[in-house]
Amino acid sequence: MSVDTRIRDSFAAQTMMDTIGAQIEEITPGLVRIAAPILPGVRQQQGFGHAGLSFTLADTAAGYAALTRAPEGADVLTSELKINLLAPARGDRLIATGRVVKPGRRLVIVTAEVHAYDGDTETLIAIAQGTIVPVIPA
Amino acid sequence: MSVDTRIRDSFAAQTMMDTIGAQIEEITPGLVRIAAPILPGVRQQQGFGHAGLSFTLADTAAGYAALTRAPEGADVLTSELKINLLAPARGDRLIATGRVVKPGRRLVIVTAEVHAYDGDTETLIAIAQGTIVPVIPA
Amino acid sequence: MSVDTRIRDSFAAQTMMDTIGAQIEEITPGLVRIAAPILPGVRQQQGFGHAGLSFTLADTAAGYAALTRAPEGADVLTSELKINLLAPARGDRLIATGRVVKPGRRLVIVTAEVHAYDGDTETLIAIAQGTIVPVIPA
Amino acid sequence: MSVDTRIRDSFAAQTMMDTIGAQIEEITPGLVRIAAPILPGVRQQQGFGHAGLSFTLADTAAGYAALTRAPEGADVLTSELKINLLAPARGDRLIATGRVVKPGRRLVIVTAEVHAYDGDTETLIAIAQGTIVPVIPA
Repeated sequence: MSVDTRIRDSFAAQTMMDTIGAQIEEITPGLVRIAAPILPGVRQQQGFGHAGLSFTLADTAAGYAALTRAPEGADVLTSELKINLLAPARGDRLIATGRVVKPGRRLVIVTAEVHAYDGDTETLIAIAQGTIVPVIPA
Repeated sequence: MSVDTRIRDSFAAQTMMDTIGAQIEEITPGLVRIAAPILPGVRQQQGFGHAGLSFTLADTAAGYAALTRAPEGADVLTSELKINLLAPARGDRLIATGRVVKPGRRLVIVTAEVHAYDGDTETLIAIAQGTIVPVIPA
Repeated sequence: MSVDTRIRDSFAAQTMMDTIGAQIEEITPGLVRIAAPILPGVRQQQGFGHAGLSFTLADTAAGYAALTRAPEGADVLTSELKINLLAPARGDRLIATGRVVKPGRRLVIVTAEVHAYDGDTETLIAIAQGTIVPVIPA
Repeated sequence: MSVDTRIRDSFAAQTMMDTIGAQIEEITPGLVRIAAPILPGVRQQQGFGHAGLSFTLADTAAGYAALTRAPEGADVLTSELKINLLAPARGDRLIATGRVVKPGRRLVIVTAEVHAYDGDTETLIAIAQGTIVPVIPA
């Protein structure tokens, strides 16, 4: 099965992606982009997208970026991820871009960026850095 | 307005909390607990709770823990949060406990733990460490 | 060889420990304490201990805490560590306490605290959270 | 006083820089590079550069990168920094490159990369992400 198909099947199995309205924007070796609207149901107390939304997108993009570099048949789990939130998630839509910094059999080191789109304005709202673990399902 | 009321009002204004079915379990000075079921719509590809769910609860518990120590009238924003995921979010329910490690006028340093409850079994599934910024709304 | 001896031998082989004047204070299962003076040569621009000193002690204490739970013959490497600096490293001496939060064959999740001692005053100056990887030397 | 002079004066006041043999390689707006040999006295138990060395360089480069964007007269303190170690610090020399991702009056978000140079070989050995706080000395 191609990496592309494996990622799309895995993505479709994540009910969280459906809840937040997320979609895969791009899959290339070492890079995955995930987009989502800032739906009415995913906001914090001031009406911006919740930090948990930005994290969820960053985590998913980074995890699937790692999967593009993982062995055939592997699944991926997030071991740890650190996010710095730079600006409020304001606007219509978020796009998270996950990138592999260092592939590995045991650990894949990744980064992610999240941009918010508000009409014609694009703002970098979060950066993340972490570790994804490839696992071979039993 | 009491801190308790300010936190409950803020929590009620976060539509994300309603989407994930979260509730406030406990508010004491420097500590807040937030609970949520692992609903069908918040899962990752293997059927466990999404890392984004654990992060969202940890972030919210840590942010409100910080609010218990922030000046009257302040709101709180997460500046950064780092989460290590220790075990799958398996079971019926998650509880995140946020704690203030060091209060401050400009920065509040916090930690959080997330436990999963699966029948009678309690498992520590995530730990987090980060920085909350008190802000005075204009 | 006992864990205690393995840690002391490894510690003695780290020339950085000698440069900063560090010593092992305590080794118990899942916890290691490392102490060091704030020597004239390890300071930042205001005369306090450098953030790099606090990190080095936290990292070493956390790594050896992980080694107390690693398989016989394993060495440990730090995969990632996140430190929040809470207060200046002011005083005579620092003590870092590393603790295992979750042992594991592939990854050990750890935390560390660093306290500064200035005469009779003890101050928590840093907290850290990270991942140690047990490795079996070839 | 120019930013360049302020950084060089501050760097000269950090005794830790002298201890590890560090030097400023480059200062441009939003970017600072710091280099250091892997001296005999800064190693871990396998003879590679200590994680604390990589952190110290990353922290210093990131802090001074922030200073290039801070108000006249400000000093900088590291609030938090997270480092992922990708490969052993093997070779003759390390260079850390600190970059400002988002400047700010209260918080400056930064990243850093550390490369090791072993003869003609350049290896990315660490990436870091964190928060620097500009402070106005009393």
